[in-house]
Amino acid sequence: MVDIATRVHNHNWKIDPIVRSLIDTDFYKLLMCQSIFRNKPDTNVTFSLINRSKSIRLADLIDEGELREQLDHVRSLSLSRGESTWLRGNTFYGKRQMFRPDFMEWFEALRLPPYHLEKHDGQYELTFEGKWPEVMLWEIPALAVLMELRSRAVLKGMGKFELQILYARAMSRLWEKIERLRHIDGLRIADFGTRRRHSFLWQDWCVQAMQEGLGDKFTGTSNCRIAMKRDIEAIGTNAHELPMVYSALTNTDAELAQAPYQVLADWHEEHDGNLRVILPDTYGTEGFLRNAPDWLSKWTGIRIDSGDPATGAETAIRWWKSRGEDPTKKLVIFSDGLDVDKIAELHARFAGRVKVSFGWGTLLTNDFTGLAEDRLAPFSLVCKAVSANGRPTVKLSDNPNKAMGPADEIARYKRVFGVGEQAALAVTV
Amino acid sequence: MVDIATRVHNHNWKIDPIVRSLIDTDFYKLLMCQSIFRNKPDTNVTFSLINRSKSIRLADLIDEGELREQLDHVRSLSLSRGESTWLRGNTFYGKRQMFRPDFMEWFEALRLPPYHLEKHDGQYELTFEGKWPEVMLWEIPALAVLMELRSRAVLKGMGKFELQILYARAMSRLWEKIERLRHIDGLRIADFGTRRRHSFLWQDWCVQAMQEGLGDKFTGTSNCRIAMKRDIEAIGTNAHELPMVYSALTNTDAELAQAPYQVLADWHEEHDGNLRVILPDTYGTEGFLRNAPDWLSKWTGIRIDSGDPATGAETAIRWWKSRGEDPTKKLVIFSDGLDVDKIAELHARFAGRVKVSFGWGTLLTNDFTGLAEDRLAPFSLVCKAVSANGRPTVKLSDNPNKAMGPADEIARYKRVFGVGEQAALAVTV
Repeated sequence: MVDIATRVHNHNWKIDPIVRSLIDTDFYKLLMCQSIFRNKPDTNVTFSLINRSKSIRLADLIDEGELREQLDHVRSLSLSRGESTWLRGNTFYGKRQMFRPDFMEWFEALRLPPYHLEKHDGQYELTFEGKWPEVMLWEIPALAVLMELRSRAVLKGMGKFELQILYARAMSRLWEKIERLRHIDGLRIADFGTRRRHSFLWQDWCVQAMQEGLGDKFTGTSNCRIAMKRDIEAIGTNAHELPMVYSALTNTDAELAQAPYQVLADWHEEHDGNLRVILPDTYGTEGFLRNAPDWLSKWTGIRIDSGDPATGAETAIRWWKSRGEDPTKKLVIFSDGLDVDKIAELHARFAGRVKVSFGWGTLLTNDFTGLAEDRLAPFSLVCKAVSANGRPTVKLSDNPNKAMGPADEIARYKRVFGVGEQAALAVTV
Repeated sequence: MVDIATRVHNHNWKIDPIVRSLIDTDFYKLLMCQSIFRNKPDTNVTFSLINRSKSIRLADLIDEGELREQLDHVRSLSLSRGESTWLRGNTFYGKRQMFRPDFMEWFEALRLPPYHLEKHDGQYELTFEGKWPEVMLWEIPALAVLMELRSRAVLKGMGKFELQILYARAMSRLWEKIERLRHIDGLRIADFGTRRRHSFLWQDWCVQAMQEGLGDKFTGTSNCRIAMKRDIEAIGTNAHELPMVYSALTNTDAELAQAPYQVLADWHEEHDGNLRVILPDTYGTEGFLRNAPDWLSKWTGIRIDSGDPATGAETAIRWWKSRGEDPTKKLVIFSDGLDVDKIAELHARFAGRVKVSFGWGTLLTNDFTGLAEDRLAPFSLVCKAVSANGRPTVKLSDNPNKAMGPADEIARYKRVFGVGEQAALAVTV
């Protein structure tokens, strides 16, 4: 029998909100937010959406009215009581009360600040300005909204059977990947795919498929909402925005050279164990490790997020050995552009030499490549801090194609951090 | 598990069409259409929507764009192959091939003609002009669209539980009516509620509830689409538009006085048995029967559609007796503003004296009175022929509140048909 009430209700949707919770975001954003809330609460920053895949003309695909409705809906969100209870009481990385009461009180009162949206040359210019701890929480919902509106724009023209087959194929594809991963002994892999997901429901499905298919090899998800909903681990540490903003705030080259270490010194005070993971590539991994203070070599691990991942891991291993550390006790987290072949290859090469772990993003939660005439293929969208207290931020990374910032500042940062020739790698996701 | 494809598909609805089939209409419209197609194919008529319930400001409630989308969708419909096969091959009133091949060929090629829509003083002025057999098929879909858009406008603001309770209550209410009807021995009742239904799905539910609850006492539905879908009898004979248009086409008072009988003479040629049912009230039942030719008294029955129904039935019984007919062999169909009390009362009074039958309309398929703060209560919307070949039509009926046409023409018709004093009855549905 047709359930008339349900059908009427479904028909009445004015908007189908993409982001329905302030914790539908990455766990590391909340960790960093608390750190910023304590150490740099009054820094003014601008975050900006950057579509590195210029051929995807988002402003042509996505209706501006719909985009505004979705962003306005995000601004209407606040932490629910259950979410607050979960953040306050749940164990993260083995620790209770990860989030301090003063931070939680602030977070409970938070609504996201206004956005600025313009169209330019087939792209949206979407920026957020304000206090760092508030503005930085826009990153993930903004990306998730844009990604899913693009998915919806493509799905809109498809028939019922086309849709059924589309998802059947995408599900089969992921399941085949999971079946290959299942055979890798000692694998440890987490979902890092919130920001580039095809849709919320799809990410949630992927996480559940990983749970069933990989069992203990699946270590958790970066998505707090899904971690809470599915009662699994929330995963994440810190990201480039910390050294980028800290660096932009410095006044001299000498201060600049120290800024990335100052970030980790602040982190060191707050966190221990598996949360002490270095992200070394913001201004070049080689130089960062060469000039790192000794206490950093005691940290638990390193996350490799750009450049050739095997080269990055070998560099880390050499560095640990040079500082008298045992690499087999250290954690290496690969998180850049991974798919099954690369995961298998890196695991084969490094398992036993270090503790290996993977943060699987875009190609877990958005591998629709080749489906729907390739109009759903993932693309490279980011939302980054572009200035802090009026000064531009700079990122170099281990891949010059991922560099950002004004040319003169890039040159200065390269000089200060002693970055030499870098191998350019294509950025697809 | 969430069925992502279904959810995406449901979300993609651009329009949720109210009328999805050209045979989502009343059976008598098709019978009359075939008759008109044969006898008056080139008559130009104008049909017009008339909301007798002025307090329901339809143009304030219903978005014009949505209304146009729905009406445009109706214009895109054509007879499907299965529908054509059913009309050509099904048994109606015990007869095969009720619809002639020439009519079916015409019907298969038919698309409904354009509509004219304007807003005036909180109401829609919706008119249809063109050849009678085409324009007349707009009546039921136009009413169904307006009725359901009004329902949707009210339902739009309601929550999921409110909706669930609303339908639970409406279902319970109808079921209680059915339980009362079930106890009436020898009851024969059909669904006549297409034009005033709350929604298509709701009418379909009501029909199924009647099937299960009343068994053989439920004789069928006026709705062809539902009759086909649920494999039950399609019910209906003829309506006021035939005498109204035939009368408007006459040139003299003498011709006018004969027009209603000419309608039935044409009908007599085409139909026999239970399809020979007189609708006597267009210009007053008393005068119509008094002046009726003798062959009409041989017809199977009379439909009572205005005025006090018991009075109408007593008049018919007296008339049959005066013509030497046995009323116990005759059929009386009550179809005006019925609900359970009235049905029970009329059945008790006339069962045994005549064959009694009921066509239950608005209060079967739209009794939401008092629910949703009474904002879904049924109201009196009709779509009538207002002119034929440029001349205004007139209807008097047995209730002066249902009369329509220019005042001078009403006066003339009253004189020609010898209509005296009439009792005014409130028109609620």
